[in-house]
Amino acid sequence: MHIITLTSDFGSKDYAVAAVKGSLLDLIDNPTIIDISHEITPYNIPEAAYILNAVYSNFPKNSIHIIGIDSEKTLEQRHLIARYNGHYFIGADNGIFSLIAEQDQFDRIIEIQHPKSKDSSFPMLDIFVDIAAQIVFNEELENLGNSTTEVKKWIKNIPDLSSENELIGHVNYVDRYGNLVTDISKEFFDTVCNDRSFEIFASNAKIKKIHQNYNAFINFELPITQRQKTGNALAIFNSLGFLEIALYKSDPQHGGSASTLLGLEVGDSIKIVFEG
Amino acid sequence: MHIITLTSDFGSKDYAVAAVKGSLLDLIDNPTIIDISHEITPYNIPEAAYILNAVYSNFPKNSIHIIGIDSEKTLEQRHLIARYNGHYFIGADNGIFSLIAEQDQFDRIIEIQHPKSKDSSFPMLDIFVDIAAQIVFNEELENLGNSTTEVKKWIKNIPDLSSENELIGHVNYVDRYGNLVTDISKEFFDTVCNDRSFEIFASNAKIKKIHQNYNAFINFELPITQRQKTGNALAIFNSLGFLEIALYKSDPQHGGSASTLLGLEVGDSIKIVFEG
Amino acid sequence: MHIITLTSDFGSKDYAVAAVKGSLLDLIDNPTIIDISHEITPYNIPEAAYILNAVYSNFPKNSIHIIGIDSEKTLEQRHLIARYNGHYFIGADNGIFSLIAEQDQFDRIIEIQHPKSKDSSFPMLDIFVDIAAQIVFNEELENLGNSTTEVKKWIKNIPDLSSENELIGHVNYVDRYGNLVTDISKEFFDTVCNDRSFEIFASNAKIKKIHQNYNAFINFELPITQRQKTGNALAIFNSLGFLEIALYKSDPQHGGSASTLLGLEVGDSIKIVFEG
Repeated sequence: MHIITLTSDFGSKDYAVAAVKGSLLDLIDNPTIIDISHEITPYNIPEAAYILNAVYSNFPKNSIHIIGIDSEKTLEQRHLIARYNGHYFIGADNGIFSLIAEQDQFDRIIEIQHPKSKDSSFPMLDIFVDIAAQIVFNEELENLGNSTTEVKKWIKNIPDLSSENELIGHVNYVDRYGNLVTDISKEFFDTVCNDRSFEIFASNAKIKKIHQNYNAFINFELPITQRQKTGNALAIFNSLGFLEIALYKSDPQHGGSASTLLGLEVGDSIKIVFEG
Repeated sequence: MHIITLTSDFGSKDYAVAAVKGSLLDLIDNPTIIDISHEITPYNIPEAAYILNAVYSNFPKNSIHIIGIDSEKTLEQRHLIARYNGHYFIGADNGIFSLIAEQDQFDRIIEIQHPKSKDSSFPMLDIFVDIAAQIVFNEELENLGNSTTEVKKWIKNIPDLSSENELIGHVNYVDRYGNLVTDISKEFFDTVCNDRSFEIFASNAKIKKIHQNYNAFINFELPITQRQKTGNALAIFNSLGFLEIALYKSDPQHGGSASTLLGLEVGDSIKIVFEG
Repeated sequence: MHIITLTSDFGSKDYAVAAVKGSLLDLIDNPTIIDISHEITPYNIPEAAYILNAVYSNFPKNSIHIIGIDSEKTLEQRHLIARYNGHYFIGADNGIFSLIAEQDQFDRIIEIQHPKSKDSSFPMLDIFVDIAAQIVFNEELENLGNSTTEVKKWIKNIPDLSSENELIGHVNYVDRYGNLVTDISKEFFDTVCNDRSFEIFASNAKIKKIHQNYNAFINFELPITQRQKTGNALAIFNSLGFLEIALYKSDPQHGGSASTLLGLEVGDSIKIVFEG
């Protein structure tokens, strides 16, 4: 079973995704092709990285992950194959590889040499599909290009420990429910927190507890009339381990969400104050 | 061939669906994974039930249907496996099972016992995928939890026969074309109607005939200039057998639809008056 | 491996696509089912044709392409199987076949005879799935209906050579990035152009060069401050060979696109003036 995943900003209406799948089926015998997401905001590298990072390791080892976002080759942007954590990644060196791993963590990075690279306006179809097929056919990576050790660095927000008692994080992603995923990992939070009490300030919301899951916000042992108001913001670590500010059972189209009600978007800050 | 279907309110952009697929591929050898829909309105149980009920029986027997909507386990909400009509359903007992079948119709209902159930904020990934794999591996259902006979009841709209001559139905779903699907089944309609003449009142539309399909609304034997105005509402029983109020070839984005032009939404009523 | 592709205007929320997939899985042993697009604008035949034409030949020979758009059978609209270029196409004779090939180019056209054709409101499920299964089972096409040689003609825009020096083209499709795909093919352009210099007029944009790909618009050898303004329109031939007016790295939701900034939509004209 050869598993190939696709991540792109092509959307689900245009012909691009189906062209890629057709060619994969034409080149490879019975591949398993899985869409990660094609709804990435156009040209949004960190968003693509967030989603790909969230899922690639769920797939079996040796899966091939093709990334179709901002993928033309230019003087400033090469085409790469990278091997990391038992997986293959194929895409343009537009910064996304630095968001998958530190450059010295990759087992192997190959700068693709392909006759169609120079002029293609659709490298995912013209080059990456072919490279994926070569990997399936057990071609040695060295035969697909030249080894390299560098990937383009993407400068990303990181949580800012402005003092021992104050942590500034950033909204990195707003999900379908309008929940706000920040760049604060549970691991980092736990280290800074060190069992102190704390208060999270997200716009005008103040939150003193991080729940295990969404429903832990509600005390189901109380009668319904005495339970927590569900319109207040809650905090959890999401299934990836990032701090998330959420509304209980929110639907952005009906009644609003953490994002719309707090007025927070990607790039905005939240603050956590720890007891001195 | 092991067929596993996925129904959720996760949307197609976020990482959730791909995480589930990656894990299924990691646990099960070459499964066939089919998306039913991931565009369910967040937390909308009856909408999920409408779509799942519409299609599950098209799939081969022994297909496994995983339902990822409002699926955290709480004091009030268990995780269930149900066997019905030759199919497996896995999800939270949030009312959706009562919309798939009456509780005494299920061949088997198991309350899942799983170490991750208590705290997970993503049970479709953490628990349901694993349960599906166990079913594929022919694990006995009894080994996955405790038998139970009850499912949580969802109170739904049903058509209301206010008198022998008047039937009140409700809009249950608005589809991509803006057509209004009601809760009146052809079977129920035929029994009440008993070959009497009738008139359907949907907002300001009055309809005296239910067509076999959309194009039966048009008499193609007439010259084009003498044909039915296509802007008038028509009625058919849709492919599931529910009464549907439609506009001929409508596109909600261009020129409106039955929903926008009649001003009717999910939950609104329509009335049918039968000849006395 | 039996490859079946699906193209429709059903969207990704409703039950229609999953119903079709379930039935294909029920009838055919382990088919490979690929979505081309289900986001076709409702009833938009040329849009469906544009997308299907863009991709079908990427798929292996003998793939079966099911088209689910405006597919009810009427006195004026038959159900067809067409064999062309090594592929099978199944759909309603609503004009789309004339946009796939000239009618004398088809190897074989069969008017489907099927017991459910007359009344079905969902022919993709009730008839086309069954026909696809028969083709997979190697049923002779003649046994599925009657041979025919005609397909309904769709009158489409074609580029208009108003004089030796002036070419009028039309916007045929607006893609996810808001780029404008015209009906001017590279082949036709090259013939008319004959190496003369030219200027493209698209609304208020004037473009004197057609680039090899999007990034060729930028001269990466120049310092960043001296490079082309990225807000200006550029022209390329897209991966299908059609002239496209684009903005560099545009996102219609954030900052606009060629379509929104030039105010051009499907059906609008652009002009190319060649040196006399």
